[in-house]
Amino acid sequence: MNSLVRELKETVCALHDELVRYNLVAWTAGNVSGRVPGEDLFVIKPSGVSYDDLTPESIVVCDLDGNLVEGELSPSSDTAAHAYVYRAMPHVGGVVHTHSTYASAWAARGEAIPCVLTAMADEFGGEIPVGPFALIGGDDIGKGIVATLEGRRSPAVLMRNHGVFTIGASAKAAVKAAVMCEDVARTVHVARQLGEPLPIPQGDIDSLYDRYQNVYGQRSPR
Amino acid sequence: MNSLVRELKETVCALHDELVRYNLVAWTAGNVSGRVPGEDLFVIKPSGVSYDDLTPESIVVCDLDGNLVEGELSPSSDTAAHAYVYRAMPHVGGVVHTHSTYASAWAARGEAIPCVLTAMADEFGGEIPVGPFALIGGDDIGKGIVATLEGRRSPAVLMRNHGVFTIGASAKAAVKAAVMCEDVARTVHVARQLGEPLPIPQGDIDSLYDRYQNVYGQRSPR
Amino acid sequence: MNSLVRELKETVCALHDELVRYNLVAWTAGNVSGRVPGEDLFVIKPSGVSYDDLTPESIVVCDLDGNLVEGELSPSSDTAAHAYVYRAMPHVGGVVHTHSTYASAWAARGEAIPCVLTAMADEFGGEIPVGPFALIGGDDIGKGIVATLEGRRSPAVLMRNHGVFTIGASAKAAVKAAVMCEDVARTVHVARQLGEPLPIPQGDIDSLYDRYQNVYGQRSPR
Amino acid sequence: MNSLVRELKETVCALHDELVRYNLVAWTAGNVSGRVPGEDLFVIKPSGVSYDDLTPESIVVCDLDGNLVEGELSPSSDTAAHAYVYRAMPHVGGVVHTHSTYASAWAARGEAIPCVLTAMADEFGGEIPVGPFALIGGDDIGKGIVATLEGRRSPAVLMRNHGVFTIGASAKAAVKAAVMCEDVARTVHVARQLGEPLPIPQGDIDSLYDRYQNVYGQRSPR
Repeated sequence: MNSLVRELKETVCALHDELVRYNLVAWTAGNVSGRVPGEDLFVIKPSGVSYDDLTPESIVVCDLDGNLVEGELSPSSDTAAHAYVYRAMPHVGGVVHTHSTYASAWAARGEAIPCVLTAMADEFGGEIPVGPFALIGGDDIGKGIVATLEGRRSPAVLMRNHGVFTIGASAKAAVKAAVMCEDVARTVHVARQLGEPLPIPQGDIDSLYDRYQNVYGQRSPR
Repeated sequence: MNSLVRELKETVCALHDELVRYNLVAWTAGNVSGRVPGEDLFVIKPSGVSYDDLTPESIVVCDLDGNLVEGELSPSSDTAAHAYVYRAMPHVGGVVHTHSTYASAWAARGEAIPCVLTAMADEFGGEIPVGPFALIGGDDIGKGIVATLEGRRSPAVLMRNHGVFTIGASAKAAVKAAVMCEDVARTVHVARQLGEPLPIPQGDIDSLYDRYQNVYGQRSPR
Repeated sequence: MNSLVRELKETVCALHDELVRYNLVAWTAGNVSGRVPGEDLFVIKPSGVSYDDLTPESIVVCDLDGNLVEGELSPSSDTAAHAYVYRAMPHVGGVVHTHSTYASAWAARGEAIPCVLTAMADEFGGEIPVGPFALIGGDDIGKGIVATLEGRRSPAVLMRNHGVFTIGASAKAAVKAAVMCEDVARTVHVARQLGEPLPIPQGDIDSLYDRYQNVYGQRSPR
Repeated sequence: MNSLVRELKETVCALHDELVRYNLVAWTAGNVSGRVPGEDLFVIKPSGVSYDDLTPESIVVCDLDGNLVEGELSPSSDTAAHAYVYRAMPHVGGVVHTHSTYASAWAARGEAIPCVLTAMADEFGGEIPVGPFALIGGDDIGKGIVATLEGRRSPAVLMRNHGVFTIGASAKAAVKAAVMCEDVARTVHVARQLGEPLPIPQGDIDSLYDRYQNVYGQRSPR
């Protein structure tokens, strides 16, 4: 197990650089986690550590109740939410949380992002939904994420007055969803500033989503 | 031919850095292609490869029907659209596709960008037009691009609910058009947020366009 | 004392890089200061020096009346405001001033930023208030800062038609407040562009603030 | 003279990096020039050369009629405008031209930027005025710049439907004015998006301007 965890820590540490590169995070306000394959464990960012100072060694290991299992630092203050998602959604291999500007602005209004871009149909298969307002510190955020995403195509949820949580088969896929969520949140916002975007018929959304999930990219695990 | 193709792969690979530098692309959502001079071939980005990992060797070669001719990776999922443009427009030496934010926002509303900036008259010779909504996977996108651009000055088309395609005598010229398209899309958007931009008389647009196409820059092929 | 001051100069010099990194400053328009522990002194950026040219040696030392005590360059033109804050608020160890875009836009309208994001409840414990219009050159700015912040949770004040001042237990904490102030100023602005953000009940703001101030991060001085 | 010109070429070449750093330019659309002290000459960017490829050696020398005096490349297509300003305004030592987004948006509406920020009072001493629409290729742009700026405090003019020209005692001062012009154009735009910025009384603008021009910075030539 040790080498698997070490590798995952490296991957998850490096993925935080993508949050910085795409301007999804300010100061220390965002985190990535990844499930340890075959174990009831996940690795996650430590709390309040700056992205510059993040090293694979500083990434901590938690069990699925969010208890610290390995590591010298306290886990992210969002650990309970990540843990809840891993407990409730066995197919999820990675979770990301950010307060990225445009997605959080939709979340502040409690408004779902309508699917008016083909790139959004590809990645999200429809609108990006809004989850409930929930306080940090228990299972409320995790429950809100799972209740909103379960049975939907979208790997992203806008938690009301808060920010974004995304899920994926891997930590990298969840990061991609976080990057694309902010990208479409911004483009649809800008479009709406000067009028109403044209709708895409549901049948076209369906066929775009189906094609992208099955044909896009190289024939290797994404 | 081999050294010509190798050089073109290097050029096209490096031009993707300009898409990143000017924030025209998120994750892997944008691509550049270039026609092989004197051959019924073009080179293009492989599908779903990150810009960090792009090397000249990873750039693939396709024929004008979009079939992979050389390369180990699958070509961009937008290859059919690029191929259609090269088949239909023999003067085109380069094609670029992006989902850049402001241009895609105009595209989401299905609204052409009015020519209210001298820099826009220079480069586009008038408004930047909107092409039809089209699904990926056949010739529909390519047909929409060609039908919209043929006989017009603009090297850029806003594909409805989708993004931008630009053309040029070379891959570099098409990249320049993509950069300038987003730049004017943003400036005109910002101008419109607080009122109506002043129109530029058609005669002035014509003389700006004529001058820029014939006088600007150094006396060498652009 | 010398080694303490030298270390503080290094810290304060490096913290200016964060203002640049987060795009809070243009040209030379922003400054960080830090109180010398146990002394009636603080260190501050010299006036009109570019961030590229800033070195720990160029950082100057002033007394709490704003008089230059050590250093070859003139202190920041905002020194009187920093000095006033240190005189009036003994718990303040760092002060930051910027003209960051979104915060300054709220300041130009003289409008407080409403607390509609959990991240804002965490860091600011409520709205970010507006201070009075005040001319540079005497104690007016300092008085306006102190009168607005005293007895409030917010470590940031929007000085009318001017920009932002933030305070903290350390220079780093004040820089964090400046970064977060611009981040929430931008997100709430964007949210408001397309409707009204949903309010967060005062009780929830209180519990978020309380938790963040006492639980977040690692168990070490921030 | 030779070493003076060589040094000025280096300065002007390096100042173009500031246009890039502050996102004032896309592709090759912006230029800096500087007057050769004591000579009827100025140095300026060559036409259509990318900022990456710019070297001190590639910077060209022109006389005050805009004729190329030294250099292998054609001078900027905006050379006639720069030359006109140097002929008409003997106190001007540097000129900058950009199409920076927010300033150009005000220019597209033909609207002056109102002075509602203390930083704007400091640097511009009042509103940033609009100059006439003028075609490139003769003295019309230069005449419009000079007619608008002469006898005013503002070192920046928004040329209608075009972009910004700034002047300064040196090339560096003109670049600073271009950076600050975009900065205040953006902040005032953002402020206006959600209401009316509060006015600053003329007397306060006057005293801010007076102080900044005479007291700010270090006691050395700026």
